[in-house]
Amino acid sequence: MSPNFHMTPDEFRRYGKMVIDWIADYYERVEELPVLSQVKPGDIRAALPPAPPEHGESFEAMLRDVEQIILPGLTHWQSPNFFAYFPANSSPPAVLGDLLSSGLAVQGMLWSTSPACTELETHVMDWLVDMTGLPPQFKSTSTGGGVIQDSASSATLCAVLAARERATGYTSNEEGVTPRLVAYASSQTHSSLEKDVKIAGIGRKNLRIIEVDENFAMRPDLLRRQIEADREAGLLPFFVCGTVGTTSVGAVDPLPEIGQICREYGLWFHVDAAMYGTAAVCPEFRHLIRGVELADSYTFNPHKWMFTNFDCNAFFVADRQALINALSIMPEYLRNQASESGEVFDYRDWQIPLGRRFRALKLWFVIRHYGVEGLRHHIRQHVDLARRFAAWVRASDRFELAAEPPLNLVCFRHRDGDEATQRLMERLNQSGKLFLTHTRLNGKFTLRFSIGQTRTELRHVERAWQLMNELAGD
Amino acid sequence: MSPNFHMTPDEFRRYGKMVIDWIADYYERVEELPVLSQVKPGDIRAALPPAPPEHGESFEAMLRDVEQIILPGLTHWQSPNFFAYFPANSSPPAVLGDLLSSGLAVQGMLWSTSPACTELETHVMDWLVDMTGLPPQFKSTSTGGGVIQDSASSATLCAVLAARERATGYTSNEEGVTPRLVAYASSQTHSSLEKDVKIAGIGRKNLRIIEVDENFAMRPDLLRRQIEADREAGLLPFFVCGTVGTTSVGAVDPLPEIGQICREYGLWFHVDAAMYGTAAVCPEFRHLIRGVELADSYTFNPHKWMFTNFDCNAFFVADRQALINALSIMPEYLRNQASESGEVFDYRDWQIPLGRRFRALKLWFVIRHYGVEGLRHHIRQHVDLARRFAAWVRASDRFELAAEPPLNLVCFRHRDGDEATQRLMERLNQSGKLFLTHTRLNGKFTLRFSIGQTRTELRHVERAWQLMNELAGD
Repeated sequence: MSPNFHMTPDEFRRYGKMVIDWIADYYERVEELPVLSQVKPGDIRAALPPAPPEHGESFEAMLRDVEQIILPGLTHWQSPNFFAYFPANSSPPAVLGDLLSSGLAVQGMLWSTSPACTELETHVMDWLVDMTGLPPQFKSTSTGGGVIQDSASSATLCAVLAARERATGYTSNEEGVTPRLVAYASSQTHSSLEKDVKIAGIGRKNLRIIEVDENFAMRPDLLRRQIEADREAGLLPFFVCGTVGTTSVGAVDPLPEIGQICREYGLWFHVDAAMYGTAAVCPEFRHLIRGVELADSYTFNPHKWMFTNFDCNAFFVADRQALINALSIMPEYLRNQASESGEVFDYRDWQIPLGRRFRALKLWFVIRHYGVEGLRHHIRQHVDLARRFAAWVRASDRFELAAEPPLNLVCFRHRDGDEATQRLMERLNQSGKLFLTHTRLNGKFTLRFSIGQTRTELRHVERAWQLMNELAGD
Repeated sequence: MSPNFHMTPDEFRRYGKMVIDWIADYYERVEELPVLSQVKPGDIRAALPPAPPEHGESFEAMLRDVEQIILPGLTHWQSPNFFAYFPANSSPPAVLGDLLSSGLAVQGMLWSTSPACTELETHVMDWLVDMTGLPPQFKSTSTGGGVIQDSASSATLCAVLAARERATGYTSNEEGVTPRLVAYASSQTHSSLEKDVKIAGIGRKNLRIIEVDENFAMRPDLLRRQIEADREAGLLPFFVCGTVGTTSVGAVDPLPEIGQICREYGLWFHVDAAMYGTAAVCPEFRHLIRGVELADSYTFNPHKWMFTNFDCNAFFVADRQALINALSIMPEYLRNQASESGEVFDYRDWQIPLGRRFRALKLWFVIRHYGVEGLRHHIRQHVDLARRFAAWVRASDRFELAAEPPLNLVCFRHRDGDEATQRLMERLNQSGKLFLTHTRLNGKFTLRFSIGQTRTELRHVERAWQLMNELAGD
């Protein structure tokens, strides 16, 4: 019998339980760790051996290095004092669903390569349609359907490609992109759309940036005017991206008006609700996605606010055939009876890559652990915290709101201007006690206080506010 | 105090250990499960409740459903009797590294959003350069560097985009794609390249398929002739994909000759070694990637054969700036000191999506657990098994080799022709005792016996051969 370097199932039991305990300990202490990592460029690499080990090492040594080398180099996204960017929250049931996915390690590229991987995903996506009040055409039982993507960037790229092909009668895939295609977004649309338009060969020049109103929402009158001008110039308007919860300020574009314009001129209407989409599990927040029934595609990130660890983006289309036609390939070595029967979904044709992980498990676990009731509760709690914080800012002599917060993102600044605001941000982040980030609104340096971390409670927001006031002086 | 629906750290300890034990049990029994799932379309969904639960459920109920509903719907990629497609193997240390990644749930889009996530990745990618004998320009300490992608499809898409931009002086990103671009691949190149060329707006018509020789390797003389013809026609040849281990038959393109042609005509040379790249940890197999020193980019999948669960694709470029220039965006809300210092890598500019998971942990754990020695041992064992199997086929009256197997993929057929071969495949897969897939070579239906599952040993291959002989009759 030749040597065997594999970890045995019994060793896996032992070390696996060590890792579970390590993570549980991490949850118990993460609140006390400096949120933004304090290391300098190169510090982590300098602590690692330059050459890979010739001989295997003990698991204990690996876990020790996670503690001593890796941990100080992390910015703790799971800290309840994390208020930066948008959250990428998580929860224990999600982690355990993901662990099962890693252990089973099946490939979901075709239905036949693991039917449960595809069918559970389709099923949970249909649940999300019901849970968040989306229109019926996004269901797999209708003309559309949902699929899990790694990120909203990738979902939006798929939307751009489906739109590009539909608009050109599927000739772009064959002949290459026509230079006449034009896409539309607002000045507040996420930067990934620009990247997607470049990737798809449309060219940034052909992405029209529509100006926003005083609430940072896209102006439909200007959109219409631009589409008409482009049509008159012989161009081919094909795609509009509306946003529900812009990255800078959480603005909400007027979906009904934009959707109407898209219908009128035959453009693909994509709605990016990466951040706020989760809030639609609460009926009182569904007004934010009003108009989504006019969309050709819609996306939001359970990995932002639905307690499901990255990566888990939910992407819906009203006409799945448009998506599949744009992305399908079928070489001989992937042919199989189930695919040819037309009775199944092969999700490789709904995404950019071929391979795919069993990501539905973690979302299924989250929905079942919390129930819709539990999800609603925690989302309402985050929104309530943001409203309290906004009220404190509004009442403050020192700070001012940069915009009215529609949901759980509060944008504010020091009344003394950019320098004071930026100095405050640096002091706060260097303190290690919280982490927040910035944007520019109407040219002014603005802090973004984004509340959505799983275990953020009132006391964390209170302490943050206290710290802001302490550090806001000269 | 309002109600709280979260799982506590102590509950996480308890349920986490249940999941660890469930996975260890799975490893111990997976060999006995039917490899290819026997369910029919719709079976899994029919067993799931149509509506999401309003109230939370117990973890025990969820785990019971995994056992009773999900498990029968899986095709067991981690079974030692899995010989289909290419493997997507895994190992306990990879699963535990991935578990830590899920638990920490950090975002690696920027260096500053978790420095250790970026630096460990850069470091482990540099290790892979040394471990597999890649040229020094692929190291981060030189002009290039490595990055983890979700799949070879995505890695190749990034290569196509970098090549497209370099060839057009970065005007395609701005103006949209010029219709003059032409890419080259062989008739055996993976279908994802066709998909990538379509996504990038090049158009399938502008992907030239170069014929192969009797070993299914690209013919460099025909490549040169085609490039010259395209140049004479006023077109812009910009990209060639060479493959080390084609999907159908494991063929190896002549990289030195193709690389030389690319240098001569100024084309981007991408090498796809998704399957065989891992074998280069063994010096005796490095001849397969000879010529990679001429490549602009190179990719292989540790998630295929390096015991690291999906997703973990390793993508290397010789000139990282060409990649970054093609994919970089920098909106205000992502600006930070570290990025502006130029001292760090922000991996969002090396990939399609913005967000990214901490995938380096699992690869780090695998390399440290096995050591380079352990990886070599198990790869050699798989190759040895394939050689034994090929020898049995060669000596058989009933079967014949469709091609000489360069490594761990054996292509063979029934001597009685397509019908007998296809019937055998169906019988084998329906038996549940093993799973293998097919391709067509020179028009003939051909079985692919692909050996690379982590725990496949001689006895599994022997039993497979015995079964093939039993089921090969009328």
